[in-house]
Amino acid sequence: MERHLDVELRHLQERLLTMASLVEGSIGRAIHALVSREAPLAQQVVHSDEPINMAEIDIDELCLKMTALYHPEATDLRFIMMAFKINNDLERIGDLAVNIAERTLELLKEPLLKPLIDIPRMATVAQGMVKDSLDAFVKRDAELARAVCRRDDEVDRLNDQVFRELLTCMLQDPRSIERAVELILIGRHLERIADHATNIAEDVVYLVQGRTIKHHVAGE
Amino acid sequence: MERHLDVELRHLQERLLTMASLVEGSIGRAIHALVSREAPLAQQVVHSDEPINMAEIDIDELCLKMTALYHPEATDLRFIMMAFKINNDLERIGDLAVNIAERTLELLKEPLLKPLIDIPRMATVAQGMVKDSLDAFVKRDAELARAVCRRDDEVDRLNDQVFRELLTCMLQDPRSIERAVELILIGRHLERIADHATNIAEDVVYLVQGRTIKHHVAGE
Repeated sequence: MERHLDVELRHLQERLLTMASLVEGSIGRAIHALVSREAPLAQQVVHSDEPINMAEIDIDELCLKMTALYHPEATDLRFIMMAFKINNDLERIGDLAVNIAERTLELLKEPLLKPLIDIPRMATVAQGMVKDSLDAFVKRDAELARAVCRRDDEVDRLNDQVFRELLTCMLQDPRSIERAVELILIGRHLERIADHATNIAEDVVYLVQGRTIKHHVAGE
Repeated sequence: MERHLDVELRHLQERLLTMASLVEGSIGRAIHALVSREAPLAQQVVHSDEPINMAEIDIDELCLKMTALYHPEATDLRFIMMAFKINNDLERIGDLAVNIAERTLELLKEPLLKPLIDIPRMATVAQGMVKDSLDAFVKRDAELARAVCRRDDEVDRLNDQVFRELLTCMLQDPRSIERAVELILIGRHLERIADHATNIAEDVVYLVQGRTIKHHVAGE
């Protein structure tokens, strides 16, 4: 017979997946708004922060209630504590998508600086990392989680490239400075989204293998 | 008679305070290195990340073990879960201090752009917020925690000021661009430190009053 706790754990997982899809949607829309210069879409991302914040509070409460009610042990406890952490990372990813949308709204007041290539590429990688880290969580797939961690370097590399190109842009034409700074900050936001996805993936490895790969203490 | 759990809870609190003081020290040294242009001090901050990372892992483990072993309820459980969260915020504050130190090392390769006034001021406020949020945690002082949350606006305001001044600087003299961008990013790092302190303070209010003020859902 299925335990009550199992039903609740599945429920918790579903809630987290719903939250993750809200957050992924926000990243996608924020970057789409930036690339296709659609202010209403950016506005939509800013407003979508509220349901994400409410979802975070609900999931936190659920984790606390489950721990108090079922006294879960070993794997179940680890699962709940990791869900509690992942929830926090997802909410911050949502905040970062809002930050991107806000900067996009600023950028849209000015003409296009230059066609965007690396930023959308970074966004695609970062979004994929968020998606895969949650997939790894659902499937308890430590290998997939480790692959997510490795992709963080790609995002960092792209971000360095974006940073250097925009610096050159500013040096060549001071009129580009304001827009270039906004784009540099968008690059930073994407880099942080990838960092949060990496945190989630590290938590999944811990959940599955019971040992931490955080800060590369256990090596790879 | 004192419960075993009480001894462990006090132990957990002490570990968290030690971690907090490591992190506060890193912020202080990173800003001192920036202002007084001392590269070896900045290097020291970069290297101090390792003990902070180790402390985070230890505290996480402790939280999990305590929950599994004592089946804590109500206030005790909330305390442990909040410690688990605060631990994560502290580690990220430590990372941000390292980021500031790394940018400082870049800046020290070039002559001083301009005397720094608002950035050290932001740093002082942010550092005070970290300290007070932990004090509020130890004393279960919701009022102090709420005061921390209110100071977040001051940091945001200072950061906007720093941002605008540095933009003007870049527009007036393109040779200042690289250094100005570094300083803008340092401002962002400090703003994020203040955000993490605000998260901790919000968690303290939740711990003490059992209701969330996150995302201003419950209002003030």
